[in-house]
Parts: sequence; C-alpha cells; structure tokens
Amino acid sequence: MPGTNTVAPSSIIIEDIQPRVDCGRYPIKREVGDRVDVSADIFRDGHDMIAAVLQFRAHDESDWREEEMRFVDNDRWAARFIVDDNTTFFYRIEAYPDYVGSWRDEIGKKLGAGLDVASELLEGVHLIEEIASRASGEDLATLESAIERARGANDQGSAVAALDEAAVCAAIEANRSRVGRAVSPEYAVTVDRLAARFSAWYSMFPRSAGTEPGRSATFRDVERQLPRIADMGFDVLYFTPIHPISKSKRKGRNNSLVSVEGDPGVPYAIGSEEGGHDAIHPELGTLDDFRHLVTQAASFGMEIALDVALQGSPEHPWLKKHPDWFYIRPDGSIKFGENPPKRYEDMYPLNFQSDAWREIWDEMLRIILFWVDHGVKMFRVDNPHTKPTVFWEWLIAQVRAKHPEVIFLSEAFTRPKVMRALAKAGFAQSYTYFTWRNFKQEIREYGEELTQTEMKDFLRANFFPNTHDILPSILQEGGRPAFQFRLVLAATMSSAYGIYSGFELCENTPVPGKEEYLHSEKYEYKVWDWDRSGNISAYVSRVNAIRRSHPALQEYENLRFVDTSDDNVLAYYKATEDLADIVLVIVNLDPFHAHQTTVRLPLDTLGIGHDGQVRAHELFTDETFLWTGNEQHLTLDPQDNPAMMFSLHKWVHHDYVEPDY
Amino acid sequence: MPGTNTVAPSSIIIEDIQPRVDCGRYPIKREVGDRVDVSADIFRDGHDMIAAVLQFRAHDESDWREEEMRFVDNDRWAARFIVDDNTTFFYRIEAYPDYVGSWRDEIGKKLGAGLDVASELLEGVHLIEEIASRASGEDLATLESAIERARGANDQGSAVAALDEAAVCAAIEANRSRVGRAVSPEYAVTVDRLAARFSAWYSMFPRSAGTEPGRSATFRDVERQLPRIADMGFDVLYFTPIHPISKSKRKGRNNSLVSVEGDPGVPYAIGSEEGGHDAIHPELGTLDDFRHLVTQAASFGMEIALDVALQGSPEHPWLKKHPDWFYIRPDGSIKFGENPPKRYEDMYPLNFQSDAWREIWDEMLRIILFWVDHGVKMFRVDNPHTKPTVFWEWLIAQVRAKHPEVIFLSEAFTRPKVMRALAKAGFAQSYTYFTWRNFKQEIREYGEELTQTEMKDFLRANFFPNTHDILPSILQEGGRPAFQFRLVLAATMSSAYGIYSGFELCENTPVPGKEEYLHSEKYEYKVWDWDRSGNISAYVSRVNAIRRSHPALQEYENLRFVDTSDDNVLAYYKATEDLADIVLVIVNLDPFHAHQTTVRLPLDTLGIGHDGQVRAHELFTDETFLWTGNEQHLTLDPQDNPAMMFSLHKWVHHDYVEPDY
Repeated sequence: MPGTNTVAPSSIIIEDIQPRVDCGRYPIKREVGDRVDVSADIFRDGHDMIAAVLQFRAHDESDWREEEMRFVDNDRWAARFIVDDNTTFFYRIEAYPDYVGSWRDEIGKKLGAGLDVASELLEGVHLIEEIASRASGEDLATLESAIERARGANDQGSAVAALDEAAVCAAIEANRSRVGRAVSPEYAVTVDRLAARFSAWYSMFPRSAGTEPGRSATFRDVERQLPRIADMGFDVLYFTPIHPISKSKRKGRNNSLVSVEGDPGVPYAIGSEEGGHDAIHPELGTLDDFRHLVTQAASFGMEIALDVALQGSPEHPWLKKHPDWFYIRPDGSIKFGENPPKRYEDMYPLNFQSDAWREIWDEMLRIILFWVDHGVKMFRVDNPHTKPTVFWEWLIAQVRAKHPEVIFLSEAFTRPKVMRALAKAGFAQSYTYFTWRNFKQEIREYGEELTQTEMKDFLRANFFPNTHDILPSILQEGGRPAFQFRLVLAATMSSAYGIYSGFELCENTPVPGKEEYLHSEKYEYKVWDWDRSGNISAYVSRVNAIRRSHPALQEYENLRFVDTSDDNVLAYYKATEDLADIVLVIVNLDPFHAHQTTVRLPLDTLGIGHDGQVRAHELFTDETFLWTGNEQHLTLDPQDNPAMMFSLHKWVHHDYVEPDY
Repeated sequence: MPGTNTVAPSSIIIEDIQPRVDCGRYPIKREVGDRVDVSADIFRDGHDMIAAVLQFRAHDESDWREEEMRFVDNDRWAARFIVDDNTTFFYRIEAYPDYVGSWRDEIGKKLGAGLDVASELLEGVHLIEEIASRASGEDLATLESAIERARGANDQGSAVAALDEAAVCAAIEANRSRVGRAVSPEYAVTVDRLAARFSAWYSMFPRSAGTEPGRSATFRDVERQLPRIADMGFDVLYFTPIHPISKSKRKGRNNSLVSVEGDPGVPYAIGSEEGGHDAIHPELGTLDDFRHLVTQAASFGMEIALDVALQGSPEHPWLKKHPDWFYIRPDGSIKFGENPPKRYEDMYPLNFQSDAWREIWDEMLRIILFWVDHGVKMFRVDNPHTKPTVFWEWLIAQVRAKHPEVIFLSEAFTRPKVMRALAKAGFAQSYTYFTWRNFKQEIREYGEELTQTEMKDFLRANFFPNTHDILPSILQEGGRPAFQFRLVLAATMSSAYGIYSGFELCENTPVPGKEEYLHSEKYEYKVWDWDRSGNISAYVSRVNAIRRSHPALQEYENLRFVDTSDDNVLAYYKATEDLADIVLVIVNLDPFHAHQTTVRLPLDTLGIGHDGQVRAHELFTDETFLWTGNEQHLTLDPQDNPAMMFSLHKWVHHDYVEPDY
C-alpha cells in the first residue's frame, strides 16, 4: 500500500510532461531570458476540481518559484517560466485538490437549482476557517471578515456572495491547502548564454592570416584580420588547432604521405617536443600573444573558439609519459589511427576504455579549463563521436559547473542517433546534414525535423555551408549564386551558422571527384587576397546585419515553411512570438536559371488577416512593396537575386486628420 | 565521475526501448503465448562493433532468459520473446562490445587490402585465449584447437581462417566477454490469460431470466438460460450486481423518485439488512445456488463476471459500522451521491480520501477475494473513474499477486486521458467510445488509435454496441440491420466485445429523446420472449462461430482498414502474422439503403501478390468467389447483407498430373 502516513495517497495523476528529453534522462536546453512552456496531462477521479502550479528554480536556489497552471483542453494544463540565469534550472509540477473551487462549483449549482444549501454553507465556512488557520496579516483579516459576514447574512445567496468576493478569493488562493497533492518528477534545463542559440561563426586557419607566402602567419597577423571579419558581422572566430605539430609522419600537400621541407603539417597532428594540447605552436606566437588576440577580438565584439581534437601525434608528450592511455599492440608499440584500409600514422587515438580512463578524463578536463582560464569560452570539438558520449557528458557538466558560459560545438558528421546522443549529452551546438541538403523537399523536411520535433529541445543546429573538410558539390558547381543562397539558407534557417574562410571568396576548386578543397590549408601555408574579384564579402555583411536587426532571425524554433508553386524555390518565414518582427525568406535553389514562383503567405497566422494588405520591405534592395492577398508572384534570378528577404508588416491605414492650422 | 571501479563506464547507449508505457511507469499488457517484440536504439562511439541481447524473465524466475538481438537499421536493434505464463514478466536489454566481431572486421579489411596482419593475428589469439578462459568442455577444446592451428598456419590468411570457422564462432559467442556492457532499465509485462484479449461477453440482469411477470428470477432460472446463451457463442456471462438492494429511497420504474410495492429497486443500490457486497439478494438464491450456477456455466464453456459497484445504499451495513468511510456533512449525516443538481439518494459514495482510507482499501480487496474464492475470475467495474486510480492500481496488483487469472473490465465512459489511466493502472479490458462511433471516418480513426498507437500496449478495447445504460441512436433508428452490422463491427474490429441482453431481440424502445431504454430493467422485473419475431440470435451465433474458427479475429493489434469508394461502406481485414488466416470484413454503415462499393485489397501485404488470384469465401453465405486483381466491386443491402465477411486465400494452381492408371 503506497505511503505509510494517514493521509490517503494522492488521487491526482500528472502525466506526459512536456518538454522533456528521453523521459527526463537528459536536460532540455534554453538560453538566458528564454521561455520554457511546460504542459502536462493532469487529472483525478470524479468531478472534484484541481489546481496545479509549475514550480521552477535555478540550480542554486533552495525554494521553488511558482506559476499557476491554466487548463487548456482535454485534461491538458500549461504554464510558462522564464530562465533568467546562465545555469541549470529545474522544474516540476505540483497539483492538488481545489477544495474551495469544488465547493463553489457545487454550491453555485445548487443555489441555481433553488436547493437549500445550509449544510453546504457550513462546509464552506469550515473550509475557509481551515485556510485562515494558515493566513496572517491582511489575508487573515479578509478571511475572518468574510466568514463573519457569511454567518450574519440574511439569506444563503448573500452568505455565498460574501465568501466569493475577489479579495476573499485572492486570500484563499494565497493560503489554500495542498493536502492531497501530487508532485511530478523533476526535469532539468541547461540554460546557456544567448550565443548558444544566436551566433555567426567564422572558421579559419590562423596560420593563413598573413601576407608572406610559404610561412606561417602569427596571432598578430590574425589581429590585423579582425576588422575585416568583424565588418562581415561574425561573432565567433574559430581556429583550427593552434598547438605544436608533429614533424614525424608529417603529411605533405594534398594529404600526401611524404612531406617536404617547408610543409607545415596538419594542425590535428597535435604535439611535439614543444608541447601538447596546452601549448601554442611557436610559429603562431606565445600564450601572451594569444591572450592579446582574445582581448583584441573582444574589442571587435568577437570571441575566439578553439578546436578540441583529443588525439596525440607521434611526438605528443602523452605518448612518452602515458603510453597506457593509448592502444598498445602485442609488440608493445602504440597503435595509430586507422579506418582500414585507411591509416592515419600522424595521429594516435586515446584509449578511453583503458584502465587509465580516469587519468585521461581528468587530463581532458584540465586542458579545457586551461583554455577557459585563458579567455576561451567556445570550443569546437573535432570528431566527438569517436570518444564515449558518457565522457562528454561528464566533461561538459564539469566545465559548466564552474563556467556555465562555456559552449561546446559538436563536429559529428555521423549517424543521426549518434549525433543526437552527443547533443543530449551536453553539446550546446551541433554540426548537421545541412551541408548536403540541396533540394526543396529535403531541406524542408530536415528543417522541420530540427525545429518542429523533440530535437528542438536538445539539439541546436549550427549550419555550415562549407568546412575546411567539406566543399560540397553545390558550391563546386553552382559558383557565386550558390555561395550566396547557401549563405542565406544557413544564416536564416538556423539562428546559429558559420562559414569556413574562403567562402566569402567563393573559393571552390575541389580535389577532382571529391567534396574536398584542392590545395587544402590543412596541409600548407596559404596567403589569401581577401579583395579578390567575385568575392561576396559585402553580401555576407548584409546578411549578418539583417540577422542582427531582426529578432525573428535570432530565434531557433520559429522556422516555418510556406508553399511555393515552383519546386526550385524554397520559402519560409520566422516571426517573433508577438509577431512584431516577421521575416520571409525566398530562395531560388537553382544556381543556373531564373525561376518564377507563387508564394502562399499564411496571413492569418501572421496576424495580418486573410485579405490583409502587407507592407513588404525587401532587405537586400531596401525596396518596399504593398502586397494584397496571400499569393505573391516573384521571380528570382541567380545572377541578380538568388535569395530575397522581406520584412513583413500589416499595412496600416492612417485616417485623414485635418491639419491643425 | 560515474562508477568507482577501474573499468571505464560503458560507452554503449541504449535508448528509446519499445514497447513501454509512460517511460516504463506502467507495464505493457500481453496474453499467455503472446509475443513481445522489443526494439531499441543501441550504439556506441567509433567504429567498433557491438552485440546485444534481449533479457526476459517471469516474475518468479531468478535468471534472465536471453534472445540475441539483430540489427535492423539506423542503429535500431530488435528481438522477440514469448510470454509463456499467466504472471508478470520483466525485460531489459544488455549490450556490450563485440570484441571478436570488431577484430574480424578489422583483420578482414586489412587482409583484403594486402596488409601485413601479424600484430592483428596476435591480438586475435589473445582475444580468443581470454574467451577460452571462461569456456569448458567442447567449447574449450574447439577454441584451444583453433588457437593451435592459427599459430601453426603457413600463412596469415589460413591463420585467420582457423579462427573464423563456424564451430569456433559458436564457441566464441557462447563464452564471449561482456566487459564494457550497458544494461537498460527493466520494463514489466502483465501477462493475462487469453480471455483478456479474446472473449465475447453477454450482459444480463439475472432477475430477468425467468418466466413469471412481476417477480424476480433465480439463479436456477439463469441456469435454464445457459444453453441459449452458449448456443449464441458467448464466453462470459456478466451479471449486474447480485447483492441485496436497499428498500429505503428505492427508485421506481423509469427512474421515478417514488417506488411502489413490487418495484425491485436498482441493483446498484447495494446493501440492506440482508447484507452488503459479500451477500446475495435472497430473491436470486443462496451462495450455494451461485456456486452451482458458476459450475453449470463452466460446463457450457462460460464463466461468470460480476459487477463491482463500490458504493453503499442507505441500508448498507457499512453505513452503520463505518460511517467514517463516507462523506460526513456538518450536521453529522452522511452525504448521498450527487452531481448537482442531480441527486442519487439511494447511493452513498465512499470517501477514499478519508482518514480511514486503508480500511476501505482492505475491505474492497476482501470483497473481490471473497468472490474469487467463489469462482469468479472476471469483474466488470462500475464507474471506476469516480474512485482513485491509485486505488485500482493497488487493488488489481494485490488480486493478481494471488490470482493472476483475474480480469477486470473498466466501465469508464469518461474523458480519454482518464480512461487510459485506468487501463494503465491495471484494468485488463476497457469500455470504449465505440458505442457512439457510427461513421466511416470516425470508426476508422478510432480503430487505428486503439490498435495502431501506443494504446495497443496497455488498453484492450471491449466493444459494446449497447449496455443496460446505453441504447445508442443508431440502434434506435437503424433497427434490425443496424443491430446486425453493429454486432459485426464490435465482434470483428476488436477481439473482445459484448452485448447487453435484448440486443439479440433488437430491443430498441428508448426513453424519448434519450439514449436510454424505456422500461429499463434497472428499475423493474422483466420477462423476455427470447424467440420473439425479428430476433437475430442465429446471426449472433454465426458471428461468434466465425470468431472462434478464425484465429485472425482473436488477435487485437492486427486491425487494418482498406479503402473503399463509398463513404457509407467500411472495410478492414485482420490477418495472423503468418498470413494463414485472413478475414476481410465489409460493412454497410447505412441501415436504410443498399450501397455499391469498390474495395481495394492490399494483395501484396497479404502475401497474394498484386496481380494474384484470390479465393474469397463469404462466411455468412458460405459462397466462394474467385477474385482477380486488387479491386473488387460489391453491393451491400441492409435487408440482405448489411455486412460481409470473407476468408481470403491465395488461389493455388494445381498442375495437371496424369492419373495413375
């Protein structure tokens, strides 16, 4: 028999609490200032009424804050709370019998039917006396006065009315009994800072920031790039690994097995006698130079994100000090990376299953905290899906416990369930399949999967149209228009996106037959002409400026597709909850030909009304249109306007007012 | 850091185990001999292979039985187990690294690429030696021999082959290491006897089984009805309450507030000086008579289901002995049932929230066990939604712990979430909204909701076209054809169904403007002419005989609708998993007019092939048709064939064989 006290077990059931991830096994994700809309099925046997509160608290608060839940429909109740701090929040639901509400309902019906309610009045007085026993001050006075007036009333109707005044109801609600209450399990919310949701990443090899061919740029050279990158509107400057690079087994240009003098090696072959994951490649500068760069970037409104690639080169200090952290072959040698028959002789994977797993975990934490202490609050994690998810869950929790502002981006291009698991385990942002979604239906389906299913509560998609590993076919073949519309898609479908440098130059020479860059920066020093002909830097600046001035584009879950008549044209909008900001995006997915299309606008949903008039402000050209009706006909020409963005407002009729003269 | 031992935490993730109800809060339901198809997402980081087993055990078994899980797709794994006992089962999943599988994969790829695998061979031998350390007998010999042959092989390919023979693989699988394993939570299965899924209920007032107007029939009279009811093919004979009825506040005919001499009272006004819930109304007979009836029914293949109505009449012994079990008014009197302004002066609800709740729970359990001891294994519970669900969960668990064969049917016609909660809490069967679903789309949607959503795992619908409380409009207006096709729908859409006596007589005189019977048996003695003109007893017999001879109709989840061209005609089929039995049901939902329709048969799904020939045996008329193609044209005339049922088989071509003479 449940419970051992004399109070009967609660007869209230609280079920199907939403949102929650995997039955509450993992936290949901939100950002500071964000809302958490909680709903649940709440009901009990019989006809008695119930009340419910949503309880929530920040991690370090001992008392629950409360929001009264409202009945929605079909036993569904809902309430909302705002997460106002960069920490972990918890929420749960408490529901209890609404004794006074049930009594009011009963006595009201009986009075209405002309029945004698003397006994019911007595019950009501008893109920309110019980509540008064918990009340004090003004509430107590209000309740005592109501009871007195009810007792002295001339008729039953007046007596009930005395117990039903607004002030009395308020005093009752504030002091009501919760005997018979049911309490749901607790659910957690990881509350990140806003950048977890809204950020524009610029990815680069710091050694390519210079002007002198054949040698590495320095952090000082990177500082000289800051104005250019800030002008384009990026918030996050992400560097491939900045650590010393192994000389032995060094890869040459275009991933050749043999390197020659002057080849810098792959930054992911981390470690040399100059140090490992907590050291800086001497060619880039010193730790002081790095800190200077972090400060300089901040002055441009940007922060630095580092790459976390948890493996050692053949020269990494770990291999000497901790060979037991790696896979040891029967002959005692350490096993390098393989995906047979591919071999990665310049990288040795850590063995997270080794008996030394705790030492490995601790060292990884130490490294992250080292860089956090040097001003890094964002990390792009290389191939997290080749390390245990349970390790990431622990690592991120440890880091967040001290530094909740830290944001981890998961670079896992792998199977869907694995990508989701990493996001659930704590990664604030995730790379996605966006890079390879090119056609209308597949883009729409993927966008809806990300933002309209349970994924929206734990996985924040960071859309990259390219990376230093991936030059997708659409960019290879579609040229400048493709770069433009892929940028628009990335920057407006998701609130977080990024490009890999060179994108703004429309750099698209592939290794033949592969989705990789020819002469990749991974293997050689590069010098770029950032003003070279055909660049779209101004276009990038424009898109980022539009993102910054439109709150609708800074939200994630609000992506909504609309129908278009042409299968080459994709259209969607994002709107703020109050509909004050609505941005309609229309993209011609064919980089070669112009397409005409009819776009169907959901004017009712947008608060404009089915027959409304719309003021549509095109955000690239600054042209304003007056649209009537929910069907608009548009032409998108890849050479002229591969994408269009409209800020929509209801057209307001101003009445004629006689001038005051 | 998870875990304190030196073994690293498992890096395997087991997610989204199906089936489960409310994250495992409630058991799923199955019947003895039934299958449980379990699937889950199971994966780990990296490329290493994994294996997984489905573990299951009956409540009283200490060791898990195991089924190897197979990879399906997209990190989904599946296996099945059979529940072979009327008890509670548990299941969970254990997954672990497939060390040998990963090794085989790696060495196979390397051999294929012509690489030297000396080191890998050594690793393999070490792996198999570790496995051999757990092996004994033949397995040990096999493994040792394999290792010896691998060591002595002339070339690496032969060495690998020696470790890869079928017998070696089997010995490896039988003794493999489970280091690094992950174990899922456990989930429960309530395994009922078959009748929980497959039963046909006949509901009656035992006092109406006689032949003498104006007086109660006896259990002996009921015994004389057994051949008739058994001939119709019913398994369960359900009685409205058989207990003494209060004389005070007794309701008269047609629910009038005043009763006159000779009015028998409502059987739900339980209790008089002659006893309460463990007593039998003296007019019906004695406890011995009841036991005799139970035995007689069993000899006809039927069991008795009793009505459980947990309330007391004004004369119930509880009111005197335990007034604190009820709602006490301020004046000290006990509160009768109300749903203001409606009053039920002849029934006093128990107060399950009173301080005496434990006594009430215990007494309710005592009553149920009392009748179980007198041979009753099925209970139809009246208005369970007006008592706490947590009470039912406890009660049913207590009864099942001693008598797992007991089946409770929930008579909750209330809101959907409440009905579901009762089913989750343990009711084996549930009344449904079927009684009021009349049109094609709503019937289809409801049928799919019940059998194709998560509801199928916890709620078994018992379809009643009528009850003693409900005479739905379709029967009032549609007359005999409506009785016929509503019977067919109830008896074939669900594997459990029932009728309230009089249905077979097409009794359909309503209280004007209400969905209730005029001159209801609830308020008066009745004598029925079971042979009266227009009866459909033979039709009922036929339908039940078809149910008994077709295993497909004895399953629940296998309801599948097919498209028809006429919105008045509903069609669906049920098939056994092996497709040996396929029953196609076609129903004209318009009781007034004939309709022609085209039925589209999913011949591929049915294993017949898109262009196949079908032998269709009509089960009412015994006619056989040879159909070609997946579109069949049929006419259903309410006066002639309101419903058709076809047993479908692939037409088999017999080759000409020369007679042997």
